[in-house]
Amino acid sequence: MGGLYAGRVPKLWTETVDAHRAAVREAILDTAAALVAEQGLTAVTMSRIAERAGIGRATLYKYFPDVEAILVAWHERHVADHLRRLTEIRDQAGAPGGRLDAALEFYAFIAHNRGRHNPDISALLHHGEQMVHAQRQLLDVTASLLAEAAAAGEVRDDIEPAELAAYCLHALGAASGLPSQAAVRRLVKVTTAGLRPSR
Amino acid sequence: MGGLYAGRVPKLWTETVDAHRAAVREAILDTAAALVAEQGLTAVTMSRIAERAGIGRATLYKYFPDVEAILVAWHERHVADHLRRLTEIRDQAGAPGGRLDAALEFYAFIAHNRGRHNPDISALLHHGEQMVHAQRQLLDVTASLLAEAAAAGEVRDDIEPAELAAYCLHALGAASGLPSQAAVRRLVKVTTAGLRPSR
Repeated sequence: MGGLYAGRVPKLWTETVDAHRAAVREAILDTAAALVAEQGLTAVTMSRIAERAGIGRATLYKYFPDVEAILVAWHERHVADHLRRLTEIRDQAGAPGGRLDAALEFYAFIAHNRGRHNPDISALLHHGEQMVHAQRQLLDVTASLLAEAAAAGEVRDDIEPAELAAYCLHALGAASGLPSQAAVRRLVKVTTAGLRPSR
Repeated sequence: MGGLYAGRVPKLWTETVDAHRAAVREAILDTAAALVAEQGLTAVTMSRIAERAGIGRATLYKYFPDVEAILVAWHERHVADHLRRLTEIRDQAGAPGGRLDAALEFYAFIAHNRGRHNPDISALLHHGEQMVHAQRQLLDVTASLLAEAAAAGEVRDDIEPAELAAYCLHALGAASGLPSQAAVRRLVKVTTAGLRPSR
C-alpha cells in the first residue's frame, strides 16, 4: 500500500475543509449579528442561530460554546475589518490632511452605527484583552496619520500625535449618540477644527 | 397626660436623628472609597468597611445591603458634587468664555482622576438609570455654558450647543488615559480650539 498520499498531508483536501469551516464560521457570525439586530441581544439563543444558519445545533456547538462567544468573535471580526479599512486609507496616495479627514470621518460613522445598532453588545465586550489590543492599534494608525499631517503643516505640531489621536477618537465617540449623518459630519468638522495649527 | 409632644412630631429630635444618620452614611461612603483606593475593589468587604468606620456590622447593614450598594451611593454622591460645582462655575460672574474654559478644565480633571483611581468602579456603575440622568444634566449644564459663550461670539454658532456639549464631554473623556496634568491641559486646549468661531 502506501499509496498516493503516504507520508504527507493531503493538502488540497485540507484546504477545502479549511475553506468550508471558515465559510460556516462566517455564516454563523452573520446570522448571529442579523438576529441581534432584528430581535435584540436577549432574544438570541444557540437554537435560533443554528436554525437560521441552516445547520444543526450539534454542528454549531463544534464552532462556538455559547452565544457570547459568537458575539465576541463577530465583534472582533468587525473591529479587524475597520482597522484594515483605516490602514488602507492611511496607505493611500494624496495629501496627508485629506487622508486624515477621510479616516476620521470613517471612524465617526463606525461609532455612529455602533450607537444605533448595538449599544448593549459594545458595553458587554469592550473590556476584553483583544479589545484593548485593537484600541491600541486604532490609536497607532490615527497617530501615524496625524504625524504625517503635522509634518505637512496641516495639523498642529505643538502637541504629540499620540495625544491628538486620543483626543480625536474620544471626540468622535460622541457620534454614537448623534441622531443623523449630518450631525456626524458636523462633529467631524468640530473635531478637526481642534487639530488645526495654532496661529 | 398628653404632655409636651402630644399630637405632633418632636421636630428637634427628628432633625438630630436625621443629622446623625446622614453623618453615619457619609462616613460609610468615605470609608468604602478609602478602602477601594487603598486595597482595590475586590478586597473591600462589609466587615472591613464596618471595622474601619468604627461601627458594628449590624449597624452597617441597616444602612446598606451590600458593598455594591455602598459604591453606587458613593459614586452618585461624587457625581452630584461635580454637577453642583459645574453649576456654580456656570452661575459665576465674568465672561462666558472664561466660565466655559473653567468648567471644561474642571470636567477634564474629573475624568483624569477617575481614570487613575477607579477604572473598575466606573465600568461597573455607568449603566444605571441614575447615571443616565446625571449624564443628561452634565450635558445640559455644558450646553448652557456653550450657548452663552456662542451668544457672546466666543464660541462657534454654526453648530447647536447640545452637539458641541457632546463633543466636549467625549473629547475630554480622553483625559482618563493621559499620564499627567500637563497633558490634561493640552487636551483642554485642543478641545476648546475646536469650539472657536469658524473664520
